[in-house]
Amino acid sequence: VSEASPIDALIDAYNDCIDQEEYERWPELFTEKCLYQVISREDFLAGRRSGFVYCDSKGMLLDRVRTLRSVNLYEPHRYRHMTGRSTLAQGDGCTSARTSYMVARISQEGDTDLFSTGEYRDEIVVEAGRALFRKRIVVCDSRRISNLLALPL
Amino acid sequence: VSEASPIDALIDAYNDCIDQEEYERWPELFTEKCLYQVISREDFLAGRRSGFVYCDSKGMLLDRVRTLRSVNLYEPHRYRHMTGRSTLAQGDGCTSARTSYMVARISQEGDTDLFSTGEYRDEIVVEAGRALFRKRIVVCDSRRISNLLALPL
Amino acid sequence: VSEASPIDALIDAYNDCIDQEEYERWPELFTEKCLYQVISREDFLAGRRSGFVYCDSKGMLLDRVRTLRSVNLYEPHRYRHMTGRSTLAQGDGCTSARTSYMVARISQEGDTDLFSTGEYRDEIVVEAGRALFRKRIVVCDSRRISNLLALPL
Repeated sequence: VSEASPIDALIDAYNDCIDQEEYERWPELFTEKCLYQVISREDFLAGRRSGFVYCDSKGMLLDRVRTLRSVNLYEPHRYRHMTGRSTLAQGDGCTSARTSYMVARISQEGDTDLFSTGEYRDEIVVEAGRALFRKRIVVCDSRRISNLLALPL
Repeated sequence: VSEASPIDALIDAYNDCIDQEEYERWPELFTEKCLYQVISREDFLAGRRSGFVYCDSKGMLLDRVRTLRSVNLYEPHRYRHMTGRSTLAQGDGCTSARTSYMVARISQEGDTDLFSTGEYRDEIVVEAGRALFRKRIVVCDSRRISNLLALPL
Repeated sequence: VSEASPIDALIDAYNDCIDQEEYERWPELFTEKCLYQVISREDFLAGRRSGFVYCDSKGMLLDRVRTLRSVNLYEPHRYRHMTGRSTLAQGDGCTSARTSYMVARISQEGDTDLFSTGEYRDEIVVEAGRALFRKRIVVCDSRRISNLLALPL
């Protein structure tokens, strides 16, 4: 059985913890000081900082998960991620990765729709043999996104 | 030209025989005694056995294909599969694989929709150098699925 | 950081130049004398030559991009590609590749839909260490496709 590279394993673990609704595993994929941002492609390319979501510490990610769990015992919907091959480059003490995604949303009633497409723009570091996100910017192709962005995208 | 691993080749062959409408190749990807099941995630997680489809031998799979071919000369629709990287683990005399999927359905008229998302939970054995499914459970994210489940998912 | 194979890199570069709206990079992925065709699966299997798009030189591809850019300063929509693992075979002085795709379309207003599914049937040659398409036939699962096929699929 071949092993995925640490970077592929990190990207798969991200998809997996969300799709399995094990959201508590999600903040553990980031470094303590980190950036998690969801932004439209239009705003990203224009260099704007404001987006749909902006978290700059693991603490903020943990808060999001706590809120999510306390507000809704049963989630109104669930996601399924599909990601392409990552394009990698060596950056400033990290590996930069760019990865296309499609995310489907499945409602409680069972309706399935293509919720969001775009790309992940990541900075990934390896700490003690394990890859972690120092930065993950979710660049959404669409300028509109549901304000029901409770779940991590 | 690099070769896909036997397990990746099996997963690709599964997608391919369905998407090419060469359904006769589909049962050949399973061992004689096998399990092929389509079940909602909700039922799967609750440990229920009943699902949308349940076949526990290659003979039952062959029957499904024969029925499919005899009832409809022209299929009312066709599928296109997209699968992610598999997560592998060594199991009881087999390799366990978990693989996310998205399946699009294309109608005779040409309408395309995202028909089903979920994950394949497989037990794969290698017989005479060739990988085969001993078990493939199709765990659908949605609790609803068309009762037109004539085609293998 | 592991490197993608030249063929995977070519397929990724194709998806990327379209999804990033850098259409000028698109013709550069083909040999001078080449074939780029978009055709329905039905017509392809019947051996018909006529399809939605037919270009048999890099010059024609360059023309398409020039037209695209001159007509619309702002594109009415954008694509996002997702492709599966390629099935490869050694052919006549080239590598043949077959790769499933799903393409989402994102409108200016932000609507996202699954626009087209199908497979790429490619003949790829390596010139001076770089892989290029000698032939790319886009075989669409649907018999209908928007006549707004301005963007390369």
